[in-house]
Amino acid sequence: MSDQAAVPRTGAELRAAVRAGRHRLPTSGAAPDHVQTNVAILPQDLAFEFLLFCQRNPKPCPVIEVLEAGQVDARLTAPGSDIRTDVPRYRVYRHGILVDEPDTLHAWWRHDLVTFLLGCSFTFEHALVRIGIELPHFRACRNVSMFITNIETVPAGRFHGPMVVSMRWVPRGKVVRAVQATSRFPAVHGAPVHVGDPSQIGIADLLAPDFGDTWPPSSPDDVPVFWACGVTPQAVAMASKPELMITHAPGHMFVTDLRDEDLAIL
Amino acid sequence: MSDQAAVPRTGAELRAAVRAGRHRLPTSGAAPDHVQTNVAILPQDLAFEFLLFCQRNPKPCPVIEVLEAGQVDARLTAPGSDIRTDVPRYRVYRHGILVDEPDTLHAWWRHDLVTFLLGCSFTFEHALVRIGIELPHFRACRNVSMFITNIETVPAGRFHGPMVVSMRWVPRGKVVRAVQATSRFPAVHGAPVHVGDPSQIGIADLLAPDFGDTWPPSSPDDVPVFWACGVTPQAVAMASKPELMITHAPGHMFVTDLRDEDLAIL
Repeated sequence: MSDQAAVPRTGAELRAAVRAGRHRLPTSGAAPDHVQTNVAILPQDLAFEFLLFCQRNPKPCPVIEVLEAGQVDARLTAPGSDIRTDVPRYRVYRHGILVDEPDTLHAWWRHDLVTFLLGCSFTFEHALVRIGIELPHFRACRNVSMFITNIETVPAGRFHGPMVVSMRWVPRGKVVRAVQATSRFPAVHGAPVHVGDPSQIGIADLLAPDFGDTWPPSSPDDVPVFWACGVTPQAVAMASKPELMITHAPGHMFVTDLRDEDLAIL
Repeated sequence: MSDQAAVPRTGAELRAAVRAGRHRLPTSGAAPDHVQTNVAILPQDLAFEFLLFCQRNPKPCPVIEVLEAGQVDARLTAPGSDIRTDVPRYRVYRHGILVDEPDTLHAWWRHDLVTFLLGCSFTFEHALVRIGIELPHFRACRNVSMFITNIETVPAGRFHGPMVVSMRWVPRGKVVRAVQATSRFPAVHGAPVHVGDPSQIGIADLLAPDFGDTWPPSSPDDVPVFWACGVTPQAVAMASKPELMITHAPGHMFVTDLRDEDLAIL
């Protein structure tokens, strides 16, 4: 099967490799320019409130597609896919506690499960790299710094909590360009939520992130720029301790057939 | 109370006038530059599917706010409002049949009712007028022409059906500008869905609209331009014959505290 072992170039190729057990790694860099998504799977009785939470908080929770109860294929963005097999690694939580990290969902699937595919920052990071902003974590295949802020999300039903943001250092002269470039992609967190002084959004120390890796500035001219982060909906859902919740393992995303540019507004 | 009988200038003033029974007319022209919304009220058991239908069809069904089951105030866009009293006239449908056209919902309200406020074309018509496009229906306080197309919406659960569009004549030299101006407002139908030849979207005769009034072109240089229309979600919901559905009466909208510019993306 060596002919099939080449680096997958499209979402469909990557999903086929995952489904065949040939790809269990993080998906960063695979299927370049294809839209990768965060996965949150919840029982039907939470689906309306979670979708409403996403509608009220589109920056941290940009909905790419929702699979209705029991539906396993993402018909709109990844025809022929199977959400039970096409993510390289899953995490299963019961009442907010991690109980399994399986390669497939065959042991866990139920007909009342609703799947949410949410936009992921890879798309807008490509946009930043294209305008010449260095993202050291991107090149090192490590994680961005993430922080819990004092910005409250808009609650919906049982879901509420603070917004989590990701931080990237941007040279002062490129801050406006970074705002413009990411504003084109509201479906993947869009424009920043804050520029500059971290204390204004409740962050005490930029070198002590709540999640991810630590990145010091590379120049005194670097400004910290903060974007709403896809960790927010997972953190908020988890805090409600749902009887069952399934997600992708960090970095092991579901990859669609959409191209990054398909999500651009202008 | 003559001091309170002046033309309402804000959403809050208009809602107060409606609630006090002093305003039972269509809302066009009232509270200028404030965002007016279509109203669709459905039982909770349809709420997830309807919200998902809106998420999958954001051009005809732009969600401004959703009031959770039993909630009567639009906390995010019209604090202090009461959806049971603040619309000048309602329509009540049982199993798809119009059964009442009340001034308030006190006789019909239930704690399982979920209210959807959907963007209305008034916002983007202001944007068109500002760039010098004549909208004769706007000045005459009559209705735009609306057509059922051959463009299928993306179904969700029990909801499916063709997209309804509104048509406005635009001088050839202003078509691009009209696309740009309305692209700024994705929360109120956004960019057109079609420009030019009506037969390509299944419309046989522009002088025989399915809804609204008939408007011939005012010059041989006029091009028909088509936008997704807020009649779509009502038509689709009605076709599913819900046990109970409540809407605003045509033209009698719910007016929020948002300003049109609050919805602009750029």
